[in-house]
Amino acid sequence: MYIGIDLGGTNIAGGLVSEDGRILLKDSVPTLKERPAGEIVRDMAELSGKLIAGYGAEPEEIEGIGIGCPGIVDHTSGRVIHLTNIKMDEFDLAGEFRKTLDLPVYVENDANCAALGEYVANGGGADSFMLITLGTGVGCGIVLGGRLFRGFNGAASEAGHMTLVYGGEQCNCGKKGCWEAYASVTALIRQTKAAMEAHPESMMNADAAERGKVSGRTAFECARAGDKAAAEVVDSYAKYVADGIVSLENIFQPEIISVGGGISREGEYLLKPIMEYISKNRFNKYVSKTRIVTASLHNDAGIIGAAMAAR
Amino acid sequence: MYIGIDLGGTNIAGGLVSEDGRILLKDSVPTLKERPAGEIVRDMAELSGKLIAGYGAEPEEIEGIGIGCPGIVDHTSGRVIHLTNIKMDEFDLAGEFRKTLDLPVYVENDANCAALGEYVANGGGADSFMLITLGTGVGCGIVLGGRLFRGFNGAASEAGHMTLVYGGEQCNCGKKGCWEAYASVTALIRQTKAAMEAHPESMMNADAAERGKVSGRTAFECARAGDKAAAEVVDSYAKYVADGIVSLENIFQPEIISVGGGISREGEYLLKPIMEYISKNRFNKYVSKTRIVTASLHNDAGIIGAAMAAR
Repeated sequence: MYIGIDLGGTNIAGGLVSEDGRILLKDSVPTLKERPAGEIVRDMAELSGKLIAGYGAEPEEIEGIGIGCPGIVDHTSGRVIHLTNIKMDEFDLAGEFRKTLDLPVYVENDANCAALGEYVANGGGADSFMLITLGTGVGCGIVLGGRLFRGFNGAASEAGHMTLVYGGEQCNCGKKGCWEAYASVTALIRQTKAAMEAHPESMMNADAAERGKVSGRTAFECARAGDKAAAEVVDSYAKYVADGIVSLENIFQPEIISVGGGISREGEYLLKPIMEYISKNRFNKYVSKTRIVTASLHNDAGIIGAAMAAR
Repeated sequence: MYIGIDLGGTNIAGGLVSEDGRILLKDSVPTLKERPAGEIVRDMAELSGKLIAGYGAEPEEIEGIGIGCPGIVDHTSGRVIHLTNIKMDEFDLAGEFRKTLDLPVYVENDANCAALGEYVANGGGADSFMLITLGTGVGCGIVLGGRLFRGFNGAASEAGHMTLVYGGEQCNCGKKGCWEAYASVTALIRQTKAAMEAHPESMMNADAAERGKVSGRTAFECARAGDKAAAEVVDSYAKYVADGIVSLENIFQPEIISVGGGISREGEYLLKPIMEYISKNRFNKYVSKTRIVTASLHNDAGIIGAAMAAR
């Protein structure tokens, strides 16, 4: 048995995971990210202890604890280099964790964990596998030959920060026109708001007023209900997503590209226009094609993947 | 000893190559690409025989023959799947070659060969290495952990066909806005011509009239001589090249990215603005950075790399 922990900006989610990647028990505690790092880590360790006890297991039965972190880590030493939204720079996460619960701890990037989780859920046999997560940003994890691909410095697979529109929208990373600035849910909301302003008659305005906010689902729901402006938002968003996938396919020719994140629950409604665009625009016309799928684990990918990384 | 053959649209270049990647003797014959494939292959084999005899070696001393082809090949079977400009689709290249010269033959993609050649020339110790070749198109070869990265179907590393400008210039591949449509020498010539038209006073017009053509060097030479419009062409071209490199660095974090192709002979004049752009726009601000270098083997990369692929 393993424990997988998904450290997020809002919650610390943890799970007891079987050898073959099934969650046996899970739980979460708030991150309260403004706290000192030591307190956050103590809560992670206590959550792990609670999972072990809750399942009626003994600490000796746990073969490893994997922690997925939102940022750059050194997986060889278990140290955090820099996290995006949590104050944990240059921090010995594994060492600190073991002060509370002394078990083997493995620290990994959270997008890498999610990719590993989906890879295992997909059967684990693919020659090469990429997970693209459409969320607040666009995350990416790459599994080549059954192993995480990290680059020479551990910081690889930031596909959200490849350019889609040269000189385009300003991205948080400092560069302009990143794929993330067009294909993230944050970008979709921006695109939805722009269409609402341009089309005051659109159902999207009434929908947003009723729910009190514009979300990543606003355009999808109104498009399904027949709203033309909403359908245009969905179509244009799907093409942004698809064009980035084509770039990645042309570069990697991975056996599988999996599309995850909350928006992937739109299923065929999102995947169909994406697939049409990819079929028309992919470079490879001669040999076996990359298979595009939607992710299956949703929020559990991070927990399962962190456990599988520890395995 | 090995033989490396670089099959191009104009010439078949071949070389006898030492175990450690030095060319001992080289020669070439015209491809005459409209001919039947069998004749082209016979000329390759005869060129190989000539190199062996010319060096005073015996065929038994040749441990392998590598052939770099401009297109998609199956390196496991030695078959060509599809070449870009030569009629050799679904063709048993290795088998046909051995009818004339019966030695172990290894067939590989030419951009992969060039990458392997530059990788070896660079010391061969890098964890991860990418060669970007700026020529008629934008070629790319990737070496990970000392081995060529080919994707699950052998067709990977078409980085020239990642998008740089969504919906931009039409690319030969069918998609719009590919990096190749902005960063190839073909694109540079197009950009130079547009600037010449917009700036009739520019030195570039006189230069082109004198030489009878616009080339990839026109803007560089006139910029060096102080022409403002030419300097703008060079600056804008360097940024297109650099932005694509930033995308690849963000995705791969390779230890080294090498920039090759005739235009790379512009050296610092091209590399300096590229490096300035990359330093400002790269995602990685926390850990060791990718080293950007210019390629060193120039036209010999294909020959040496094909030989190293056979090794």
